[in-house]
Amino acid sequence: MGNSVHLKEGSPEPAAVAKGVLRVYGMKFCPYVHRLKLVLAAKEVAHETININLKSKPKWYFAKNPQGKVPTIEIDGNVIYESDITSEYVDAVYPGRKLSTTDALKAANEKMLLVYWGNKSVTNFYKYCMAKPDDKEAKDAALATLKEGLEYLATFLKKNGSVFICGSQPGLTDYFLYPHLERINAIVPAVDLKQIPKVKTYFDQMQEDKAVKSCRFSDELHREFGRKAVAGDIGAYDIGPVAQ
Amino acid sequence: MGNSVHLKEGSPEPAAVAKGVLRVYGMKFCPYVHRLKLVLAAKEVAHETININLKSKPKWYFAKNPQGKVPTIEIDGNVIYESDITSEYVDAVYPGRKLSTTDALKAANEKMLLVYWGNKSVTNFYKYCMAKPDDKEAKDAALATLKEGLEYLATFLKKNGSVFICGSQPGLTDYFLYPHLERINAIVPAVDLKQIPKVKTYFDQMQEDKAVKSCRFSDELHREFGRKAVAGDIGAYDIGPVAQ
Repeated sequence: MGNSVHLKEGSPEPAAVAKGVLRVYGMKFCPYVHRLKLVLAAKEVAHETININLKSKPKWYFAKNPQGKVPTIEIDGNVIYESDITSEYVDAVYPGRKLSTTDALKAANEKMLLVYWGNKSVTNFYKYCMAKPDDKEAKDAALATLKEGLEYLATFLKKNGSVFICGSQPGLTDYFLYPHLERINAIVPAVDLKQIPKVKTYFDQMQEDKAVKSCRFSDELHREFGRKAVAGDIGAYDIGPVAQ
Repeated sequence: MGNSVHLKEGSPEPAAVAKGVLRVYGMKFCPYVHRLKLVLAAKEVAHETININLKSKPKWYFAKNPQGKVPTIEIDGNVIYESDITSEYVDAVYPGRKLSTTDALKAANEKMLLVYWGNKSVTNFYKYCMAKPDDKEAKDAALATLKEGLEYLATFLKKNGSVFICGSQPGLTDYFLYPHLERINAIVPAVDLKQIPKVKTYFDQMQEDKAVKSCRFSDELHREFGRKAVAGDIGAYDIGPVAQ
């Protein structure tokens, strides 16, 4: 996932990216960066990674991305950001396995799944994490809606009839949905995928994917990051494996 | 824009859509439906329209779209929703002028513009409209951020060097951005496009487009709808031209 120390306010700007080299600005535990990293791994696209401390952003980073978010990619003077936009760009211009479908109806169905998943499971995963530990009502409400997204995913997979959302191999939509599923499974104790067998099977099959394996953090590391991030710990980004 | 009376809770469900016919579920003043209607007009795609009263939704509509939003399209048993997803589907499967680009970098730049426009101008257009009339602080804050989106659009158009976002003719991104620009120009008195000449020229050029003309409501009608919608008037949807 790119294990370099996260640059923060005051960190000098890295040297300009070399010609022909793809640079990713990311954050080690960010599920949106995770999407792009899965796409890069699945297509075996060589790249370098600069990690950004999101609680203390270097000023120079805003010249790359005016909203200061990650991921951002940079290649030969072109700068692109947003997880879906960067991933679609990479899928379009780099060789390797094509991850998106050219079937318009299939593409529409996959995008609708992602919207529903986003509104139900992703939004409420964050609500669940940010609710005060003793606010049982808020936690329960978030959890109930989060589970609607999981049930919807189960229904989609059943109707779809294939192992993965995109077919017999994971595709763009699998790599867009999976990062939050990995975190929900690791961090939310009240979610037990065994109770939603279709999603459990899907999750288990994703664990066998080479790209997923190459970006996988342990559930315990996700939990540790979650605890520290919610507490506002500025050093949370550099836990786990760190390259010097 | 489809001027039939908006169906509400208790309205009977329309007869099933005929084979090969494209049906749009919409709302006459909705900027997201406007996006799709512009795409359909530009491609000259024949379709029928069922309007939905968004403040009193018929129960049967949730079987079409679980979130109850518009637009939704239905054709030969397939149901698709979300303004961008429906529009991209229509552009992909119907004949007529191709509205999206196959240039991956151009596509990425256009999508980033839409994200920025959405975060700055669209979100703050609604914040501006919903702020209490005497809450000058909230109105001013929304207005300032809304204008950042307009300035960004001006910079984009300048760098782009073409009349429209998509080139010498309006394309998908123009039709995605324009509906809120039409409403901002009509409804927000403190926005004077003449002060942002690049955007003013763009807006004026869009007025000449056949699709834009065919979906255009007067500024006064937009203002009347805005006033009534903010006041929660359930009959607001059926102002202006109504087909019987």
